[in-house]
This record gives sequence, C-alpha cells and structure tokens, in this order.
Amino acid sequence: MPTHAIILAGGRGERFWPLSRRDRPKQLLPLFDGRSLLQRTADRIAGWIRPDRVWVVAGAEVMPEIRRQVPFLLESRCLVEPAARNTAAAIGAAAVAVSAVEAQAVLLVLPSDHWIPDPELFREDVERAAGAAQGLGGLHLFGIAADRPETGYGYIERGAEVPGWPGTHRVVRFHEKPDPERAIEYATRPEMLWNSGIFVWRASAILDAMRLAVPGMAPLLSELRAAVNQDAERARPQTQEALARFFVRSPSESIDTAVLEKHAETYVAPARFRWSDLGTWVAWGEHLPAGADGMRCRGSVVADESRDCIAYSEGGLLALLGVRDLIVVRMGDVTLVCDRNRAQDVRRLVRWVARQGDLEEYL
Amino acid sequence: MPTHAIILAGGRGERFWPLSRRDRPKQLLPLFDGRSLLQRTADRIAGWIRPDRVWVVAGAEVMPEIRRQVPFLLESRCLVEPAARNTAAAIGAAAVAVSAVEAQAVLLVLPSDHWIPDPELFREDVERAAGAAQGLGGLHLFGIAADRPETGYGYIERGAEVPGWPGTHRVVRFHEKPDPERAIEYATRPEMLWNSGIFVWRASAILDAMRLAVPGMAPLLSELRAAVNQDAERARPQTQEALARFFVRSPSESIDTAVLEKHAETYVAPARFRWSDLGTWVAWGEHLPAGADGMRCRGSVVADESRDCIAYSEGGLLALLGVRDLIVVRMGDVTLVCDRNRAQDVRRLVRWVARQGDLEEYL
Repeated sequence: MPTHAIILAGGRGERFWPLSRRDRPKQLLPLFDGRSLLQRTADRIAGWIRPDRVWVVAGAEVMPEIRRQVPFLLESRCLVEPAARNTAAAIGAAAVAVSAVEAQAVLLVLPSDHWIPDPELFREDVERAAGAAQGLGGLHLFGIAADRPETGYGYIERGAEVPGWPGTHRVVRFHEKPDPERAIEYATRPEMLWNSGIFVWRASAILDAMRLAVPGMAPLLSELRAAVNQDAERARPQTQEALARFFVRSPSESIDTAVLEKHAETYVAPARFRWSDLGTWVAWGEHLPAGADGMRCRGSVVADESRDCIAYSEGGLLALLGVRDLIVVRMGDVTLVCDRNRAQDVRRLVRWVARQGDLEEYL
Repeated sequence: MPTHAIILAGGRGERFWPLSRRDRPKQLLPLFDGRSLLQRTADRIAGWIRPDRVWVVAGAEVMPEIRRQVPFLLESRCLVEPAARNTAAAIGAAAVAVSAVEAQAVLLVLPSDHWIPDPELFREDVERAAGAAQGLGGLHLFGIAADRPETGYGYIERGAEVPGWPGTHRVVRFHEKPDPERAIEYATRPEMLWNSGIFVWRASAILDAMRLAVPGMAPLLSELRAAVNQDAERARPQTQEALARFFVRSPSESIDTAVLEKHAETYVAPARFRWSDLGTWVAWGEHLPAGADGMRCRGSVVADESRDCIAYSEGGLLALLGVRDLIVVRMGDVTLVCDRNRAQDVRRLVRWVARQGDLEEYL
C-alpha cells in the first residue's frame, strides 16, 4: 500500500496580498522561521514518504522556485499546469501520473499553504486514513473541529463511525459556507467539521469517481493516461505536452463541488493534528505573539495608542497612531490598510486592482 | 517707510511627516501645482517688495534648497540659524540685520508654510498694517476669523478699533489654546480671532520690546548689532559668526509668549485674506477635492468601501479596504496610518521615533 503525496502548489494566495505577489505566492514566502509553507509541507512528509513518491502540481512560473526550495523533488514528479484549473484537474492529472508508476497507489493530497504544527499526529492520522482508503475504499477527507463561527469554510456533517475503522466516519452531508448566524449554530455542534482540503484515496478510486461525476472528464483522463503510459520509460516530452492539453481542456472546478459532494462513498476523519489554512491576514496574525494592547506586529512597525491591529512591514517603516482593528501590511511598493473584519475581501480587492489595467505591476 | 519681509523658514513640519522629512521640510515640498509653500510665499510679495528687502531665516541644511527654489534671494539676506531657536531669536536677529541696512524699516514677518490664496487682499491688508505700525507704532499682528472650534491655535481677543486707523484694533487679551468645550464657545464670539503668526512692526519697535520683555536678550542684540554694523560694507564673515553666537546663546521661545503677550501696545488686524497654516494632514486634506464618500486622495491610491479618509501616496500603491476616518500617507520608505482626529499628535509620534535611536533614517 505505497502512499504517494500530491502537493498542490498552484494557489495565488490573493488574500495574502500584498505580501504574496504573482511571482511570489503565499506558499513560497518564508512566513515562519525562515522556511516557507511549501517547505514545511515537504518537511512534514519527507521522513516517511520516499522522494520518488512526492509529486507537485503548479504553474510553470513558480516551478523553478519550488524546485529550489525543495531540492529532493524529482523533475519527473513536477507536473506543470499551463493555466490554473482549480483542484479537480490538478488531482486528476496527478492521479493519472501516479497510476502509471504504481497502479495500486494511495494518494495523500496536500495543499502547500497550510499550517500543521504536529507532524507526528499528522503522520498517524494519515496512515490510519490510508489504511481505510485501501481496505474500505471510497474517498476520505480530514475534518477540523470548528473552534469559532467561521463563515469562510464549507462544513462537513460527520455521521457514525464505520465499524472496524476507528476514526473514520460516514459523511452525512456537505454544507456550503454559512452565513454568520448559521456559523454560530454550527460552532456549537460537534458533528460539524471544517473541510481541511486534505484528502486520502486510492488513485483508482478518485479517477473512477471523477469519470462518473465530471461530464467530459473521462476521455480527457484516458487520453492523458495513454500519453503517460507511452512515455513511462522515456524523457517524458509527451507527458508534458499531454498535460498541457489536459489542463487547457479541463473544466475549472474544485474537487469538493465537482466530485466529493456528488459521490456516494465519502468518509471524514476528524483530525487530531492542529491545523490552520492561514487563509487570511487574521489567521496569520493569530500565530504572532500579541502585545498587551492586542497588537500583533512583525517587521519595522511603531505603534502609538493603537489596539488590536495586525501589522507587517518589510523594507520600510510602518507607523500607527491612534488606530484600532486594522490590518496594515507594507510590502515593497504596496501598502494595504484594511478593516480587520474585511480580511476575506482582500481577494476581491486584488481582483479589482487587476481589472484596472494600469496597476498590474502591483500584483 | 520701506517694508522689509522676513520669511521664517526654519520649521520642520513634523506634523506633516512622513511627507516632510528632515532634509525636506513641509515648506519646501511642492504641495500645490508643483510649487512649494515657500515659493508661493515669495511669489506673494515679489511684486511689491524689492529683492534686497526680502530676508529669510533658516538652518544651514535647508538654505541651499531655499536659494534654489527662490533664485532672487540675495546671499546677504539669508540668515543662517546654526540651531533652531524658535521665532523670538529668529525675528530679533533679522530685525538687527535689517536695521543695519535701513534704520527706519517696517518689518513684515511671514511664516514660509502658510496657504494664502488672495495675494491682492493680502497686499492691501499688509500695507494698511504697515501704515499703522509706522504712524501709530506698537506691535501689529493679523487675526483670522475662526470658522471652526479649533483647539490647535491660540486666540486673540479683539477690542475697539483705533480711531483714525481703520482695521486696526486694540488687543484685549491673548488666550491660550482652548480645550474643546471652550473652543466651541470661542467659535461663536466674533471678537475671538486666531493668531496667524504674521506680524508687522517697525524694526526698532520689536527690538525695544524684546529688550524689555526677554531677560538676557539686550546684550545679545547689542553684540550682534555691533558685529553687523562693523561688517556692513564687507563680505560679512563676522555677521555669520556673530549670528551663530547669537542663536546659540538665545533662549528658545516663541515671539508670542516671550514678547507679544507681555507687551502693552499690541494691535490686531482682522485679516480679509483667506488663510490656512496647513498645520496638519487634515488642514491639507481640506484643499483636496472630496469624493462622494468623503475620500480625499492624491497619488496612487485605490480605495474600496472606505469613507472620510485623507490618503496620499508617492512612489508606491496605497490600497484601502473598508476603513474610515484615517489619515494614510505613504512616502518613500515610511507609511503613516493615523486616526483622523489625531493629526495633531503626529508631531509627538515623530519625536518618539527620534528618541528610538535606530530609526533616525526615517525622520
């Protein structure tokens, strides 16, 4: 039951702008102790998954930096997306590529930008889920106990534990991102878990599920498989070309809505490891020590009579006077000043800036 | 009755930080239509005061830039302060220097960083005040009708008009900067005027008043006068040396508290010209057109769902999201984020930054 890891590193981290920029997305930034989230993701699995079983999917523009940051990655395990196509296509392509090497493989699908400080617990949880994915079949995902009324995530309603598979529960239902009122209710119900975006399944299981659930996907997957098989022993020029064709023609959908929510046999494992997707500046701020006035600052920041702000400055001084509940980030030639409750909307702001045309240089 | 203008250009503009920096104080910044406030001050008098009657007092570090910006200034009219000593010393030194050239001169004392958009009315008001200073004697200053309950200025209580001198009123009393409650009361009383910091008097009158009011000043002024007289026809090396000695030994006091408030014969002329001291970012913002949401922005600024902010950016993008009532200024390597009601406290913040030692480069 060899486990292969698929690291999804194609994200742009728009909600982390202006720290994350197009050529330096969030997962490649040295946010903690000089190592990036991608490096910490690779560190987390390096002790127990062989290098030739670690795969990464990302765009061509960031692949050189990814390989610089994670030197053990093999070139043949780096799958280039010519255009961002969300998680369904990336996972489908990786499942085909892994299958060609190891037909019985179990896949651990990992976002590259999550914070998980308990590598041992993580490994135990993954190994248990991999056992269930192998023995029980189906699609497995990790759920996170909600510790606040979060409106930014989808929720999974956990059902009964599966007899003989401790820690593996049936999924009763997937729930969309709730409104604030409903989020408060969910936070009081222990069966409501956040969808972590970390998945475990057999390569064959996800490919079968994808063929069933995503219209038009079956021929694309078959065509990719044929090219990859032909290419298996050679210098893989066809694989990269076939990958490019596959991504361009694939629908841009998330694996959650395109496959998981439609699939009959999904399971959720409540994570015992701590987890944060560091999805916004507020989530990041929670990992900084807070001053007595609730200020969480990093870099060259001076603050006078200010409270409950998250402030980050690189390459210049940030001076705050008499302000509260702000996110202030100064990075290179951009300064963001944002209400603390609007952290989710930074992505929208970035997309708006992109539409202005003459502000491209700041993205 | 020749009038000489004394432009006081020694200010640091700390409340305009980070736009104003030590090497580029507020009065030298091209804030309006590409011309600095100093240049606009010089423009205002250039048509009716001869170049050899225009004097400037400022520190050595800014004098080259002053002479670059105002090419008609004569070298002999540039009085260098070796150390900032507030307005009393600067005015005393200038009065001595002017007297050596023209004993009967009337002085128009002008801050270099005020905004006065009515040059013709200004000239008329000054000429009237100069006539009164000559004929009636005493110390004359311009008072500004309060259009808001301002706590940042001292107030002058205007008394009766002096018979025969229209527009010239006796001063009943000087009032300190009021608390907010009292400022509201003052704003309803037409006899309460702001002290503009623009003065008109004979050189001999202010020197006599200074000798009487400021302990220890008389011998300093006499010593300076002796050096200046000796030097009158030569290349003035002694004058500069004597000036340096004078400033270093002078008390650092404002002309208002050190002389005017103690003097028996002070007059106030209600200004007919419009005036702003552009003392803070808020005062500056009032000269920018406001958007429908009360946003006053200049430079590369994008704002989303933000209200009633003043935002300025030079050399980079400033992005605001969901914020209100802020002053945000990005200038070179410093970004200031300040509550709109705390504009007066920027000076205190700058002084605090100065005390940190390792942040000198940002001042």
